[in-house]
Amino acid sequence: MPMTITEKILAAHAGRDEVSPGELINVKVDLALGNDITAPVAIKEFGRTGVAEVFDRERVALVPDHFVPNKDIKSAEQAKLLRDFARRQGLTNYFEVGRMGIEHCLLPEQGLVGPGDLVIGADSHTCTYGALGAFSTGVGSTDLAAAMALGETWLKVPETLKFVYHGALPAWVGGKDLILYTIGQTGVDGALYMAMEFTGPAVASLSMDGRLTMANMAVEAGAKNGIVPPDEITRRYVEGRAKRPYQFYASDPGARYARVYEFDVSKLEPQVAFPHLPSNVRPVSEAGRVEIQQAVIGSCTNGRMEDLRLAAKVLQGKKVHPDVRLIVIPGTQEIYRTALKEGLVEIFLDAGAAVSTPTCGPCLGGYMGILAAGERCIATTNRNFVGRMGHPQSEVYLSNPAVAAASAILGRIAGPQEVC
Amino acid sequence: MPMTITEKILAAHAGRDEVSPGELINVKVDLALGNDITAPVAIKEFGRTGVAEVFDRERVALVPDHFVPNKDIKSAEQAKLLRDFARRQGLTNYFEVGRMGIEHCLLPEQGLVGPGDLVIGADSHTCTYGALGAFSTGVGSTDLAAAMALGETWLKVPETLKFVYHGALPAWVGGKDLILYTIGQTGVDGALYMAMEFTGPAVASLSMDGRLTMANMAVEAGAKNGIVPPDEITRRYVEGRAKRPYQFYASDPGARYARVYEFDVSKLEPQVAFPHLPSNVRPVSEAGRVEIQQAVIGSCTNGRMEDLRLAAKVLQGKKVHPDVRLIVIPGTQEIYRTALKEGLVEIFLDAGAAVSTPTCGPCLGGYMGILAAGERCIATTNRNFVGRMGHPQSEVYLSNPAVAAASAILGRIAGPQEVC
Repeated sequence: MPMTITEKILAAHAGRDEVSPGELINVKVDLALGNDITAPVAIKEFGRTGVAEVFDRERVALVPDHFVPNKDIKSAEQAKLLRDFARRQGLTNYFEVGRMGIEHCLLPEQGLVGPGDLVIGADSHTCTYGALGAFSTGVGSTDLAAAMALGETWLKVPETLKFVYHGALPAWVGGKDLILYTIGQTGVDGALYMAMEFTGPAVASLSMDGRLTMANMAVEAGAKNGIVPPDEITRRYVEGRAKRPYQFYASDPGARYARVYEFDVSKLEPQVAFPHLPSNVRPVSEAGRVEIQQAVIGSCTNGRMEDLRLAAKVLQGKKVHPDVRLIVIPGTQEIYRTALKEGLVEIFLDAGAAVSTPTCGPCLGGYMGILAAGERCIATTNRNFVGRMGHPQSEVYLSNPAVAAASAILGRIAGPQEVC
Repeated sequence: MPMTITEKILAAHAGRDEVSPGELINVKVDLALGNDITAPVAIKEFGRTGVAEVFDRERVALVPDHFVPNKDIKSAEQAKLLRDFARRQGLTNYFEVGRMGIEHCLLPEQGLVGPGDLVIGADSHTCTYGALGAFSTGVGSTDLAAAMALGETWLKVPETLKFVYHGALPAWVGGKDLILYTIGQTGVDGALYMAMEFTGPAVASLSMDGRLTMANMAVEAGAKNGIVPPDEITRRYVEGRAKRPYQFYASDPGARYARVYEFDVSKLEPQVAFPHLPSNVRPVSEAGRVEIQQAVIGSCTNGRMEDLRLAAKVLQGKKVHPDVRLIVIPGTQEIYRTALKEGLVEIFLDAGAAVSTPTCGPCLGGYMGILAAGERCIATTNRNFVGRMGHPQSEVYLSNPAVAAASAILGRIAGPQEVC
């Protein structure tokens, strides 16, 4: 029976020849991930399983990134719980402050997730790794606890939505714009418990960073997972980086899709998601006059090298608007170092941006850039729900890094063409 | 009548020929400072004075640095209050995120305080500017409000303690060690409401950064102000930097001192203040085995270029201990940029340190490195009171940047000689 790439990966991890949408299956887990918010709960539940050691000390990754470097006493206690557990269990993939990064930037970079993998993480944006041709999805902390003990989890096989992006991408348009546009079409529940398979020449032309951004936001359409067929770009990314064997899967001709979307993106503009839903998108030229007080460039969605390069291209030789705080947060320590060596950090500092050590920080209203009542922020992050970045009366607008940078310069939402 | 440098500055600002310790005087204020914690209170009180405009829009400096980039909604509201007031009043010395720094690093750097000035600030470490030969002291928020309205404040003329430091400073010993040693001698109330006048060849040999560190911690001995006689080093620092005219004052021969301390510092070791008082000092060689989980290099005490250069000298080519988080926080955006250009930031990142945008952050238990119960931190900051950096059961040890860096490498309190 012809299968989609998602079905094939699930079947392989269930030890079966085939699976069908709707089936409940038990699957082996290649990697289980927790962070400083979710892992403490999982660790407590793990303690109640009666299992003394995690199923594989190389396959449980713990990343303190949400409220770390510690925001307050509570977050310090959470991070300590993670650290103590990692040490006690001898986990090889615990990442300390100063040697870490935002989990979904860090794991691909470190070669801990690869094509054909089945990854679960107690964080909704675990779907990011679909960019590598993996099945990866967010789970609750108790599911993480069970997977840490058993190396397995159960899933319902999702139906698949196929998205075909035709045409060459215009200047300043990338993965963030494709996914925002897509969510604008599907709505935030248009892919509920489904796989989103991203295909077509426009996706094939994306770098791995652009693909990671796309897959990252699949959950914002309600999807179980997002996935990009692995190709030469994938191979180049994982070669010399992958810490485990990997396998490329591809959807069969004749595979069943719940629906196929075909988009011509050759005239797509940079997209902006207005408050308070990621689906509330407009082309940047139709944003109207929206003054902003803050811009954030970073997060698991857009904190990678390509993102920082785009932002720096717009900011080079320019100054942040006097009334705007621009906060740039490299996704990992390695990205920070590379940005430093490429001269990007200097461009940001010269422009008057605050450059932070890696952290999820403001994206989830954690810290490092929380909004007051009435303030507006343009952000390269993934969610703009009410109060997401601070006060319930603040507003978050989502965009790609070039738009965020241009807006920081002009003090209002603007496309990069206005300043470049 | 012979006067001390402190008395002379006070007399000049009171419009009198001479003043005596114990007198209550009214003085003109050259600069009034507030931050995101204290200025909001002052702004509210200012609103009740009936005065519409601040006495001089170039002489009220507002620096959001304590919980900025915004830690949470409350701090966002506080910062917004500052920003809105600065805009409404047309203040020339409001400093925005990404273009700011820790107040006591920023104001000298920007040439906003100079020799002979009388500066008040609603922050206890306002005494820092005494390093330039100014009288500067911390006041409450309501006193700041009155000064913002009137350009004047009242003071009791302090008695002066004279400290004479003899001998050449040994390697790795600087301003931080002199002041820690001094507080160890006087106790935390040994200079209560007094001026501390720092003199002698060892002080004269200190760079301006080292002097700023010394004066910064005068308040930790209870002093009203700390002051260093201005000299050629002072002149070189302020030339081309001072935004207002300045004047050098010197204590008269025969000036009255409540007490004179004479120290031979030619054999002084780097000092470490143990919990929970800055006066609880020991030479680093007598620290014993104290394992640490965090090291902080930064703050208004030790976040300047000389501090970062010292830390980098120790960290170059080395790695932070796996069990330690090293957090490096440049004092200002300008210091961050200079450190970047000198290659120091690269050294820190390569070593595995988290490098933050300028903020007071962890020093006062704000954020960016709060401690959990049972954790120990060595910090270049100024206070190690119970719970200062987080949980009441955490511990803070104060030291110079070289000791903090060496300790971060070894995972226990250690002098730089152990690693260099």
